[in-house]
Amino acid sequence: MSAAASTATGTALYGVTGWPLGQSLSPLLHNTGFAALGINALYMKWEVPPHKLPAFVESVRLLNIRGCSVTIPHKVELLPLLDEVSPLAMRVGAANTIYWQGDRLCGENTDVAGFMAPLAGVPLAGADILLLGAGGAARAVAAGLVSPAPQDRPAHIYVATPSDKSHLPLAEEFGLTPLLWQNRHEPAPLLVINTTPLGMRGKAEDDTSYDFSLAAQGAASGNTAPLAYDIVYNPLETRFLREARAAGRRCISGLEMFFGQGDAQFRLWTGQGLPPESRRALETALGQQPR
Amino acid sequence: MSAAASTATGTALYGVTGWPLGQSLSPLLHNTGFAALGINALYMKWEVPPHKLPAFVESVRLLNIRGCSVTIPHKVELLPLLDEVSPLAMRVGAANTIYWQGDRLCGENTDVAGFMAPLAGVPLAGADILLLGAGGAARAVAAGLVSPAPQDRPAHIYVATPSDKSHLPLAEEFGLTPLLWQNRHEPAPLLVINTTPLGMRGKAEDDTSYDFSLAAQGAASGNTAPLAYDIVYNPLETRFLREARAAGRRCISGLEMFFGQGDAQFRLWTGQGLPPESRRALETALGQQPR
Repeated sequence: MSAAASTATGTALYGVTGWPLGQSLSPLLHNTGFAALGINALYMKWEVPPHKLPAFVESVRLLNIRGCSVTIPHKVELLPLLDEVSPLAMRVGAANTIYWQGDRLCGENTDVAGFMAPLAGVPLAGADILLLGAGGAARAVAAGLVSPAPQDRPAHIYVATPSDKSHLPLAEEFGLTPLLWQNRHEPAPLLVINTTPLGMRGKAEDDTSYDFSLAAQGAASGNTAPLAYDIVYNPLETRFLREARAAGRRCISGLEMFFGQGDAQFRLWTGQGLPPESRRALETALGQQPR
Repeated sequence: MSAAASTATGTALYGVTGWPLGQSLSPLLHNTGFAALGINALYMKWEVPPHKLPAFVESVRLLNIRGCSVTIPHKVELLPLLDEVSPLAMRVGAANTIYWQGDRLCGENTDVAGFMAPLAGVPLAGADILLLGAGGAARAVAAGLVSPAPQDRPAHIYVATPSDKSHLPLAEEFGLTPLLWQNRHEPAPLLVINTTPLGMRGKAEDDTSYDFSLAAQGAASGNTAPLAYDIVYNPLETRFLREARAAGRRCISGLEMFFGQGDAQFRLWTGQGLPPESRRALETALGQQPR
């Protein structure tokens, strides 16, 4: 830290809270952004157990913390602790971002924008989509997929989950089409989305939620090649994406959603997007060759 | 903030709390110290109203704030909120420093060490001392003056205060000799100490607590010239010190005590003292020529 910057008292404090946090990449993303843009701010890591979340939100107010990323398990319990929650975060039932509007502490869900960002330009209107998993992340995905005006929405959004349970309420709430897990290979979706933890490093890394060799022929939409989207970002290429690629699908990795949700947070906090330096730092940290 | 340092997540957070804080010089002192010594830490300013002090201490625990300076009006109310309070802080009845010992949140009063630091080498044993003022700062001064072993203590520590009230309990508690305010010029003290706000910028800057022209001849102790000590540090040369100097006394300004209390805090937090850069930054900020 340079003497000039560090002796200033005007440093704005940001951070991420969750329980546990492990090696969150959010500090890298945001601190690189602040540094590259010359913003006098510091982004920290705060592990907070669930029963301390109300005290943590009080700390945000008391210490004038200017913004906070919120991750598992706090995204849902956070809502009633804020002064204002966006309609989108209400719809998802979860917020991943705390920010200030004047003197009001607000909540937003940028997972939705983060998920949708890499799909910009993909003609989802009238297409079939398969959503695998029905947990918290799937809620943000579903909210994003049904967010266009009715005429621009997908024809069907199928949802299936290994437990064959939680997909039913999700389907009902967002107007999706529930599928039994064993029937998940029957549709011919333009886009297959994995939101299950299958394939995640340290959990079920060698596993996958979908067998692309069993899949019905991917339905091309006009000139659009079929896609596979894994929201898992560690490893960057999961078995799900590896097999999708081999089956001829265009792949979107979890890095895109992770960068997108962080980018949207950074905009809420600073009014500008994350700079290219943040993306390169993220790619390097995840072991991808910088582009 | 350099990219390398700011993207690290291990920044240790420190700060000062009070109500109000105005333009506290503590951030300058400590952030300069952290920078000069290459310590990855940031010292912030947190204005906390009195009724929020318990929530603030909870925030210190929750956000893993590594240390905090505490100033008016929180120094007394802080004590029962900590896990451990040093015998010295208990004696003074106030703490100005929060620090961690393992997982225990502790309180110390470094105003005492800060006050005593510039008196190192002054032979106070058997001398007469006059303490002007009987508020919170005077308690730290009194605790420091009576801290030596009995044979090394001053002969008399006279105490007088403009209200002619609060000096009596202070005298009783610390074994001082109470004086009526109108009689304060009767003793011939080696050391006269101002702890009243008289002479402070913006309060009673043109005023002084002592008339050195009315004073009995200062009692030299061996080869020691008589001294005057003002704990006010803004302005650096108060009317009290200006007139003391004209009367032939050696002067100690409030800068010494302020630096000393900060130096002792820094030691509790980092294990090392504040570097010369911190002192120079303080002198520059207070308008003194660097030495």
